[in-house]
Amino acid sequence: MGHIFRRDYQIPFYETDVNHEVKLPHLLSVALQVSGEQSLELGVSDEAIFEKYHLVWVITEYNIDIKRMPRYAETVTIETEAISYNKLFCYRYFRIFDQAGEQIMTIFCHFVLIDFDSRKVAQVPDELVAPYQVEKIKKLIRGHKYQDLKEAEETLYHVRYFDLDMNGHVNNGKYLEWMYDVLDIDFLRQHCPQSVNLKYVKEIHYGGDIQSRVERDGLVSHHDITSETGVNAQAIITWKERENHV
Amino acid sequence: MGHIFRRDYQIPFYETDVNHEVKLPHLLSVALQVSGEQSLELGVSDEAIFEKYHLVWVITEYNIDIKRMPRYAETVTIETEAISYNKLFCYRYFRIFDQAGEQIMTIFCHFVLIDFDSRKVAQVPDELVAPYQVEKIKKLIRGHKYQDLKEAEETLYHVRYFDLDMNGHVNNGKYLEWMYDVLDIDFLRQHCPQSVNLKYVKEIHYGGDIQSRVERDGLVSHHDITSETGVNAQAIITWKERENHV
Repeated sequence: MGHIFRRDYQIPFYETDVNHEVKLPHLLSVALQVSGEQSLELGVSDEAIFEKYHLVWVITEYNIDIKRMPRYAETVTIETEAISYNKLFCYRYFRIFDQAGEQIMTIFCHFVLIDFDSRKVAQVPDELVAPYQVEKIKKLIRGHKYQDLKEAEETLYHVRYFDLDMNGHVNNGKYLEWMYDVLDIDFLRQHCPQSVNLKYVKEIHYGGDIQSRVERDGLVSHHDITSETGVNAQAIITWKERENHV
Repeated sequence: MGHIFRRDYQIPFYETDVNHEVKLPHLLSVALQVSGEQSLELGVSDEAIFEKYHLVWVITEYNIDIKRMPRYAETVTIETEAISYNKLFCYRYFRIFDQAGEQIMTIFCHFVLIDFDSRKVAQVPDELVAPYQVEKIKKLIRGHKYQDLKEAEETLYHVRYFDLDMNGHVNNGKYLEWMYDVLDIDFLRQHCPQSVNLKYVKEIHYGGDIQSRVERDGLVSHHDITSETGVNAQAIITWKERENHV
């Protein structure tokens, strides 16, 4: 078992959606912030590993199970634990608990380290992950399976200035925003996500256009984000009907 | 002098821009969150006034002076003070201090109370603002002057699902995002805002398109946001050259 780190977080008004719940892309950003704080506490902050190794962390996959989304003004506990790593990947859980101690979300992430300039995946230095007290494993944990979209509806988006973070790349959270945005607002009011599988394939840079494509099959929506460089991300979201929608 | 309330805030990675500074729309959202916390502490939370009066707070104008923007991972102190009100408007300062105690930003806001259903401006009930210990004044504080745009460049934006907050309206911060986004990225990398005057004229609803229009005259950019219902917001941003840009 890895080193566990926790932080409380209260859902602010400006990150709530029409269902009075936190926006999922925002919650994923906050979770990453929490693992960043853990790394800082363990002496392996993003700045430190950039300085020493010229490497940066990149998420390649999210597998999310949602019992319920945190609501406006609710305080949740975000717990994170790096659990294992192999030559190329590091694996980490985030668990979201409500005030009654019930686990309402589980987020499992695959990370890689890439060289800042070449953007190529690097081998994980053992001493870099040692502070997290994680087990080195041989096998690669298999990612979720995504299907190619055959008859998708397409919507065009232009990458915006504020989509970029301080690295000059499109922030992780934006991909999921584009995926949600192509769904009908009435569907989004009447349903909540039950599981989200999201794979990042290739980074998106400023200045280009992207297509957010979707095929919905009942309560499952299949998504991808494509640009002139091909597929940038893929996702599958399983929805359930809301009992009481706003 | 009104009741003063302060909170520390550390700038998270996911709200930084390519200049390694906080995104201004985000900082304005956090400031509002801080005044919301003050109201809660004083027993006049948004929920309480909605329940008792069926009223909600709406910002009509921001006048912002910026010495420098807070940077990534910097902890700033956000101080807020309601200073005065008249029959229709309430006036409030936000002041941002760095860790050395230097005031790096000043944000002056005009607020009104509107009826939740009719969306009409209501008179300010004296007992509602009494807990803030503010002075009632006769005069209306004059807003900034904005000019009509004659030869503006226009860019079309579609209102997105995640632009909406839990009230189902486009979140305040989005207007400024659309205004920034029409400026050239090289200009935004080489300049920082020195003052921002922003006036909200009319709410924008989901489903429509908006035009973000700009006329730049050297270091001053004149903006508006228009839709089929006319002008929704106007702004003037004064820029200065960055000494060391990223």
